[in-house]
Amino acid sequence: MIPIISTVPIQQLASGDCLSIQVYKFIGANPGKKTYLQANLHGAEIVGNAVIHQLIEFLISINDTQLNGEIWLVPVCNPISTNQRTHYFSTGRYNPSDGKDWNRIFWDYEKECEDLEDFAKSHINLEVDAIQNEYFKRIKTIFDKLLEKLNSPSGAPFNERYRYQLQSLCLDADYVIDIHSSSNQAIDYLYGFHRREESAKYFLLEHEILLNEYDGDAFDEAFLKPWLALENQLETLGKPIVFDKESWTLELGSGMQMNPESVEKGVQGIKNYLAQKDILSIPDFPLPQTASHKVTFVSKSTLKKYYAPRGGMIQSRVKLGASIEAGERLYQIISFNKEELPKLIDVCAENAGLVFDISTNHAVNEGEYVLSVM
Amino acid sequence: MIPIISTVPIQQLASGDCLSIQVYKFIGANPGKKTYLQANLHGAEIVGNAVIHQLIEFLISINDTQLNGEIWLVPVCNPISTNQRTHYFSTGRYNPSDGKDWNRIFWDYEKECEDLEDFAKSHINLEVDAIQNEYFKRIKTIFDKLLEKLNSPSGAPFNERYRYQLQSLCLDADYVIDIHSSSNQAIDYLYGFHRREESAKYFLLEHEILLNEYDGDAFDEAFLKPWLALENQLETLGKPIVFDKESWTLELGSGMQMNPESVEKGVQGIKNYLAQKDILSIPDFPLPQTASHKVTFVSKSTLKKYYAPRGGMIQSRVKLGASIEAGERLYQIISFNKEELPKLIDVCAENAGLVFDISTNHAVNEGEYVLSVM
Amino acid sequence: MIPIISTVPIQQLASGDCLSIQVYKFIGANPGKKTYLQANLHGAEIVGNAVIHQLIEFLISINDTQLNGEIWLVPVCNPISTNQRTHYFSTGRYNPSDGKDWNRIFWDYEKECEDLEDFAKSHINLEVDAIQNEYFKRIKTIFDKLLEKLNSPSGAPFNERYRYQLQSLCLDADYVIDIHSSSNQAIDYLYGFHRREESAKYFLLEHEILLNEYDGDAFDEAFLKPWLALENQLETLGKPIVFDKESWTLELGSGMQMNPESVEKGVQGIKNYLAQKDILSIPDFPLPQTASHKVTFVSKSTLKKYYAPRGGMIQSRVKLGASIEAGERLYQIISFNKEELPKLIDVCAENAGLVFDISTNHAVNEGEYVLSVM
Amino acid sequence: MIPIISTVPIQQLASGDCLSIQVYKFIGANPGKKTYLQANLHGAEIVGNAVIHQLIEFLISINDTQLNGEIWLVPVCNPISTNQRTHYFSTGRYNPSDGKDWNRIFWDYEKECEDLEDFAKSHINLEVDAIQNEYFKRIKTIFDKLLEKLNSPSGAPFNERYRYQLQSLCLDADYVIDIHSSSNQAIDYLYGFHRREESAKYFLLEHEILLNEYDGDAFDEAFLKPWLALENQLETLGKPIVFDKESWTLELGSGMQMNPESVEKGVQGIKNYLAQKDILSIPDFPLPQTASHKVTFVSKSTLKKYYAPRGGMIQSRVKLGASIEAGERLYQIISFNKEELPKLIDVCAENAGLVFDISTNHAVNEGEYVLSVM
Repeated sequence: MIPIISTVPIQQLASGDCLSIQVYKFIGANPGKKTYLQANLHGAEIVGNAVIHQLIEFLISINDTQLNGEIWLVPVCNPISTNQRTHYFSTGRYNPSDGKDWNRIFWDYEKECEDLEDFAKSHINLEVDAIQNEYFKRIKTIFDKLLEKLNSPSGAPFNERYRYQLQSLCLDADYVIDIHSSSNQAIDYLYGFHRREESAKYFLLEHEILLNEYDGDAFDEAFLKPWLALENQLETLGKPIVFDKESWTLELGSGMQMNPESVEKGVQGIKNYLAQKDILSIPDFPLPQTASHKVTFVSKSTLKKYYAPRGGMIQSRVKLGASIEAGERLYQIISFNKEELPKLIDVCAENAGLVFDISTNHAVNEGEYVLSVM
Repeated sequence: MIPIISTVPIQQLASGDCLSIQVYKFIGANPGKKTYLQANLHGAEIVGNAVIHQLIEFLISINDTQLNGEIWLVPVCNPISTNQRTHYFSTGRYNPSDGKDWNRIFWDYEKECEDLEDFAKSHINLEVDAIQNEYFKRIKTIFDKLLEKLNSPSGAPFNERYRYQLQSLCLDADYVIDIHSSSNQAIDYLYGFHRREESAKYFLLEHEILLNEYDGDAFDEAFLKPWLALENQLETLGKPIVFDKESWTLELGSGMQMNPESVEKGVQGIKNYLAQKDILSIPDFPLPQTASHKVTFVSKSTLKKYYAPRGGMIQSRVKLGASIEAGERLYQIISFNKEELPKLIDVCAENAGLVFDISTNHAVNEGEYVLSVM
Repeated sequence: MIPIISTVPIQQLASGDCLSIQVYKFIGANPGKKTYLQANLHGAEIVGNAVIHQLIEFLISINDTQLNGEIWLVPVCNPISTNQRTHYFSTGRYNPSDGKDWNRIFWDYEKECEDLEDFAKSHINLEVDAIQNEYFKRIKTIFDKLLEKLNSPSGAPFNERYRYQLQSLCLDADYVIDIHSSSNQAIDYLYGFHRREESAKYFLLEHEILLNEYDGDAFDEAFLKPWLALENQLETLGKPIVFDKESWTLELGSGMQMNPESVEKGVQGIKNYLAQKDILSIPDFPLPQTASHKVTFVSKSTLKKYYAPRGGMIQSRVKLGASIEAGERLYQIISFNKEELPKLIDVCAENAGLVFDISTNHAVNEGEYVLSVM
Repeated sequence: MIPIISTVPIQQLASGDCLSIQVYKFIGANPGKKTYLQANLHGAEIVGNAVIHQLIEFLISINDTQLNGEIWLVPVCNPISTNQRTHYFSTGRYNPSDGKDWNRIFWDYEKECEDLEDFAKSHINLEVDAIQNEYFKRIKTIFDKLLEKLNSPSGAPFNERYRYQLQSLCLDADYVIDIHSSSNQAIDYLYGFHRREESAKYFLLEHEILLNEYDGDAFDEAFLKPWLALENQLETLGKPIVFDKESWTLELGSGMQMNPESVEKGVQGIKNYLAQKDILSIPDFPLPQTASHKVTFVSKSTLKKYYAPRGGMIQSRVKLGASIEAGERLYQIISFNKEELPKLIDVCAENAGLVFDISTNHAVNEGEYVLSVM
């Protein structure tokens, strides 16, 4: 199966050069759901490019009759951040001109939909598909208006131009998968949403952070939150529905790396997910272990991040992936206080848990990030 | 009058060195209001340091009987951002570790005060001063709890440690003045709040942007919003009150500069404000022109920013301070498109207005900021 | 006259996008000298793009019979540095990966030519043109070998790849003009070389800095130094020759700006230079004032840069372009020493001279640049 | 044994805060050689801070009778670079204001000593100690003159102020040890100089890069090169002498880390070196394996660095520490070329060798560094 490759211009630079993204569209012989995958929204988080590269090679090797619906793949989806360097580090987590996190800029229909209750009431007696169609039309209508501002003389800051391009590609998708990693160093895990817990295990990862609170305007949130809001509204009105819309963020290891084990887990998990969803009809998938696979769910609000109480150098830190007890020492700071001997400061765990993310840099100014416990 | 100088440690660095801020406290012979001034919260916005330097020299030259109450002055209030450099530019507008704007990090009691209506109802029959005292106690109680998190093993990110130090200094102030400038190039103007329009003219500046919408968690907002919220609540309950609490952001010219005219306007305006408020009893002030001074008020929501529609070089831009008509050309981009001749693109004004801020950099990537019209 | 536009790929980025440069080649109806112009080698120094844009428009407006030889123009010649941003400043003076100044990376044949004396001796009796041809062949032969390293498996750092592209374009030129500006703020002036003082006045600028010492590997040096070395050698052998090879760096005002007066001076000076050299046959040029125009020459080694003796804020600085006396105050630092009152420090001139360059940033850490005197 | 702790101010910042370094001076009961150790000259290379911390703790635990001479230790010797951050990476390898590598700024007497031959001839008949004393006096006299420029009104760029402070501390030392690491990821090894090969094994590391060519103005070079130059001169005159002056750069692992094994090797190696040199009289040292320890010497000029031929993502790279054959694949680039399918590019070894340093970042723009082979 050969993909359609389309090129979407993203930004003309001061030099006149133009950055663009590539969309690899695999169209199945049979109609079906649309799946959208992207990688490398944050500059340092490159692992998903290898995952998508392997998926492209795999999809090329199969027949279009083995694909129901469409799979759209966008590696290096944010060339501005991928190419940014300070020294030789990928420091492109934030847009340098406004400081915004590249994954907190997306347009969220829920925030503009003021008549959701009215919509729910007036459509409650329709079939699920009909409700979904009507609701999507509304989203699309408002989304299309964003273009007016982009094309006005006053224009729009780059963040708004950029998000319009990416969200244009996935607005009508059914399943959205955004591949990230830690900007530091982390285990492999998943971010997922309410009422989609059952599908989580298809990815065959051990941990999911359940988004019970939102940072706001992240890519995964922006896609799914409007649908969750409508589900909530309908439930309040006595008609519990779960739309067949899903949004996932895969976190595959560490920043500036493409760890082979993480890449392999990502590829396998996505193939298994697509097979479970009947999008791919491929040998050996879904994998037999899927049914019995257990995912540990942790609510986002219960995560605990540790920040350095003093400036200095971190040593004797617990290992990534370690299970720790309350009161156990997590790390030690060598603090080179002026006019006296260096001091050692022990920092201990407030609660038991799993160390799932640790800082790459062992030198810390006061208040810098050290590690996270789930 | 000699100030009390106190040093507040702000951050221990990885090297063991410690950055601190200086508070110059002038205590009048007579009791009275507390005024808090700071400068240079954003690294490039240094103009207020010269203003505060001149105010310190002036206050030293007068007698403590000429001061009612206290004036606290904090120049270079954010040493982390003041000292930050890329090449030789002051690029410290955002915290490099989390991308947060240094002036969008402050603690806003309004967001945590869930029982404001109850408070208003139960205190509505007290004297204004008594309401103010009771409400301040509540703010202070919740604010003091922030320290627990800072001192916990998991600590807090630097932003939270820093805001605690700055807000500790001004929480009990009556008047707060935060001196900024454009990070780019701008005229001199003022940010102010609802129900304080009358005091605006004391600063003798021509333009005020009225904060009818909030960016969230700015220093001036964080100080005044809780009081505005209580005023709104009391008004709803039929008791309109304006507390004698004021918060101002002075914008004095351009970034990385201390333009002598802007400095002089700042010093004169602040002296005039303090004289009008009966804090300073000094010859010649308040200035006679104060009564007839006219301030043009513009609502924040009506400001219009222009962003480059293409990448290239800006030329023929209207001058800072120019009055422009709708349809008038604002600037031109030379776009060096590849494989063809360079193109000129004209960008015209959507509406008439005053060009009050322009970008320092005449090279723009697509979507970068060019100018603002009020 | 319509130029040939050719596109030269410069760098494939991590995202897969490719940056390139455009060469606009105007080929005259009559054979003659080759002139090479480029602009924006340092990211912030954009003024030359407007100069080149106006030259392109002008050359399009004339007839190819009015041009003897060829003029090649390369605006935005370093897209990597032009597009680089920190906050919204153009901070691309150095390659972020190795810290090298983009104008100290060029290949200088003089450094590799070990048998110059032999060459001079064996060719001394040829005609000037023949010597020039033979010498150029040698330069070209060695230059071409650079490509081997670029194409080897170990490759080469980007600086070497980049310089190869730019120097390929101008290696066989006769006159090279590189348009810069201060990265800070400066007057308009010229850098030039020994034995070319007579042509300096064609540019109609008032000041030239004569390169009597070299920073090493700058673009202008790399082009001309091999020819100067041969001239020196031949002179030592008793045959003084000046090859008709010239290399100029125009400094047109301030960084991140395209000051209209500086642009106009640049365009006029270059047209006048080209007319004097009989490359352009155009009405009104050469301008009549050329003959009597006086250029003040200053040796590079006599320039004096001033660096801040303490950290603080700069005020009361002398104006750009001011003539100053020895002992005269140049600027004042407000130093906010901790635990005491702020102090003022006066810095005075060591010698008389002209203030030709001043820092854009008025905040300085100890040892940062403040101004330059010629 | 309790050290004398002295604090040396290094830089007053724009905010008025002052960065300083700490020197921990351990003075033995018996006279002897002076050893100088420093760490963290490059911001990301923090490993030596843990080494020096352990050495301080060890020296405190012994008696001053066990120390002959003096040991001066300077951890976090470059607070500017240690504290510098972009995002949360330590990007302080270059001075941001002039792009200079912090380890290419030091004052090298050899470059200013124009009468070395005269000196050698006129002192050749003295005892070695007398020659050494007379030569040191010359170095010191010229070095002291640097202060004049620092204190002049025009001052000096920070690099010159900083190097003066560090070199003041070690100018009269006998043995200088500068602890670095890769800014990327590397094995543990040593940089050393001609005629000091015998002492190399005291550090018990497996590999030494012999500095047969110089980058120029590195800390280790600046200390030893003047002595090597005099040795060379005397040898030419028929009097081969090796002064008891040594200079070493230890490279202990990877950047932004303090790998426990690397720290342990560093501490052990330095203790063993000091014991071999009779500076420390401590149990168990020198270690018995010292005599038979073999160091592999590799000349600096034979190292081979590999740079990415295209932009993309690196995968399947050989492991750090791997021995590779000529022609063997070193790594693969996934290149996301626009408008076509992604391509894989294999890069193979030009020669056999040991992969001793690899890039931390697996995303590369064209021409970025990938790995080094010795």
